[in-house]
Amino acid sequence: MKIYVLRLFHRAERDKRITTHCALVSRAFLTEQMYYCGNKDEKLEKNIEKVNKNFGSNFSVVFIKDWKSLIKNFDGLKIHLTMYGIPLLEKIDYIKSFNKVLIIVGSEKVPKEVYEMVDLNISITNQPHSEIAALAVFLDRIFEGKEFYTNFENAMLKIIPSEKGKIVKKQNY
Amino acid sequence: MKIYVLRLFHRAERDKRITTHCALVSRAFLTEQMYYCGNKDEKLEKNIEKVNKNFGSNFSVVFIKDWKSLIKNFDGLKIHLTMYGIPLLEKIDYIKSFNKVLIIVGSEKVPKEVYEMVDLNISITNQPHSEIAALAVFLDRIFEGKEFYTNFENAMLKIIPSEKGKIVKKQNY
Repeated sequence: MKIYVLRLFHRAERDKRITTHCALVSRAFLTEQMYYCGNKDEKLEKNIEKVNKNFGSNFSVVFIKDWKSLIKNFDGLKIHLTMYGIPLLEKIDYIKSFNKVLIIVGSEKVPKEVYEMVDLNISITNQPHSEIAALAVFLDRIFEGKEFYTNFENAMLKIIPSEKGKIVKKQNY
Repeated sequence: MKIYVLRLFHRAERDKRITTHCALVSRAFLTEQMYYCGNKDEKLEKNIEKVNKNFGSNFSVVFIKDWKSLIKNFDGLKIHLTMYGIPLLEKIDYIKSFNKVLIIVGSEKVPKEVYEMVDLNISITNQPHSEIAALAVFLDRIFEGKEFYTNFENAMLKIIPSEKGKIVKKQNY
């Protein structure tokens, strides 16, 4: 399954770390690409390029202006993650039957039309918490832990799991 | 199982949203308490109190000065979440055999002694991403999705899962 992420309404100053965490989770948990709208943020894009350079993968962060067209024209299942939605566990088999999925995560105020434009509004608990957490749990459950053992191509650095301390292997590719 | 969280080295300005997300995840994913050290942050504590007041639970955020004593004196399994650690899936049965667990999540620079003081250094993928995501996936896997259907006591507001839109029920308790 190919999964794409759309992060809505990034504010370059206020959201810089939250959106960076969303992007890093999207990359580490095996999505293809994260689109974002709001303020274009070159620092965010460069941060992710740097992570790719060190740890591999072809994941990218792409700024878009017209998020409505992106949602409308996406040719797969469109899911909005929200605490108001249907619990993931009730829809997971249905979601897994698709080959291409767009996951939309919001900032504080998501307009009503997003709820209406998507195929599913899905909750990761019906409690207030974090779009970063919701995205990670969603992806872990959809990929069934596959992300735990991924080796990205083109990685200059590889972390070797260790009981105590840090083991980083440099490698040529 | 009773789980406690320790968030290391909170910087009130730079980390305010990241630490708030850690606290909200700790609450929504059924831990007992989140300790934090670094800068005391009354706004953070009040935010969580407000969430408790609206949505229930007795979860609390507690500032501590001496994180080393907290780790040393904790009478349960001590786990540090880090991208350098052993993949959770290799240790999950062992972890589940304990009744009381302390999860430590760091900021950018975690001192070497933390790696040595804990019983386990555990990774949620060996890739750089987010302490918020790592905490959420850890708790979802340990509690096996129990958090999806929790009704907290003393909740004034209850969210009713909905296909489209937001349904919030006010209730007396």
